[in-house]
Amino acid sequence: MDRPREGVGRLPAGLDLDALAERVVWALRGRISFEVEASGRHVHLSVPHVEALFGKGASLSPERPLSQPGQFLCSQRVTLVGPKGDMRNVAVLGPERDKTQVEVSMTDALTLGISPPVRDSGDIRGSAQLVIRGPNGEVRLDEGVIVAHRHIHMTPDDAILLGVRDGDRVRVRVPGDRPVIFEEVLVRVSPKYSLAMHIDYDEANACGYRKGVRGNIVP
Amino acid sequence: MDRPREGVGRLPAGLDLDALAERVVWALRGRISFEVEASGRHVHLSVPHVEALFGKGASLSPERPLSQPGQFLCSQRVTLVGPKGDMRNVAVLGPERDKTQVEVSMTDALTLGISPPVRDSGDIRGSAQLVIRGPNGEVRLDEGVIVAHRHIHMTPDDAILLGVRDGDRVRVRVPGDRPVIFEEVLVRVSPKYSLAMHIDYDEANACGYRKGVRGNIVP
Repeated sequence: MDRPREGVGRLPAGLDLDALAERVVWALRGRISFEVEASGRHVHLSVPHVEALFGKGASLSPERPLSQPGQFLCSQRVTLVGPKGDMRNVAVLGPERDKTQVEVSMTDALTLGISPPVRDSGDIRGSAQLVIRGPNGEVRLDEGVIVAHRHIHMTPDDAILLGVRDGDRVRVRVPGDRPVIFEEVLVRVSPKYSLAMHIDYDEANACGYRKGVRGNIVP
Repeated sequence: MDRPREGVGRLPAGLDLDALAERVVWALRGRISFEVEASGRHVHLSVPHVEALFGKGASLSPERPLSQPGQFLCSQRVTLVGPKGDMRNVAVLGPERDKTQVEVSMTDALTLGISPPVRDSGDIRGSAQLVIRGPNGEVRLDEGVIVAHRHIHMTPDDAILLGVRDGDRVRVRVPGDRPVIFEEVLVRVSPKYSLAMHIDYDEANACGYRKGVRGNIVP
């Protein structure tokens, strides 16, 4: 026997609205895919470090915009100097940040001879040390080198559609030659963001990454 | 009301034996973990290629046994020569095989300047080319270079307990700093094998691999 329910019209008796809502949310999640972007090693620099590396009064100069609004690849490059090896021509991303942060892959870390922790961007306390060399000087970082934990950038609207909140950890499936489900992918929500998932090159290689591939949140 | 069923004693009416069996199988799978081993770049050599690289009459000499019974790391080393770079001191695994096969990671492939396909071991038709250099000569491979697809070696007894068959593709969860579920992991069953999963270093880095970590088959 049917009976009316407030707000949702006439529904069959015994219908489990919560279970239905859950199924709809998962159906939506399955349909909303997002581009997966592979990030190479790069540095974010503080204003004092920009000057230390590139000279008094220097500032970062944009070469091309990145997928996240306001972020850009700089024309400047730096060298990372580790106990076991150097890596030249490393990308600098702008704009300037409060604290300098270096993001490398585990493969890079082996080349450099350091053991950075896997961390969410911005969480650099007690992370690895490294020297950054620029054309005008060096910066000796006491901390700031991490392997960036994979994450998804999204707007609040994206988050509502995907049924997630800032700080959530989700599973994301990336299809391809070597399909992988990445667990504990950090959700980062801000009106300043654009929907995209970021992985590093180790993760890209492990899932047979090709540019343009799209990921999905899975149960 | 209870009723007797042949072979399984008295069971409650309406019991779904198939569903029960399925749950038991999954519970077992969850309990049976296996060591995950990360394989670095290496080559398997044919008898003619052993002689071409190490001299007439040469044979592979074991340095230490590997986890798979009868397989060993050789004291010999080779250099891989690609269009863009060389890799020295590359491991040779014995015993000799019918066909020479070179297994590299995608990161290695970038260094060498080649584009090998992701393949199951032994499936080398039309795979990538490379030169192998030894102390006594070179071998120019027209095919044989692959990125090995991740796989699990197991005995027929292991396969029964895990509810899988040779050639199956399963999902394996590897815990750690960056937990990952690897999909389409090939199951390889032989009485000659020992239970272990093999991944390459890109996959190891992507899951935050530490020696001794154990994987599980998951739904």
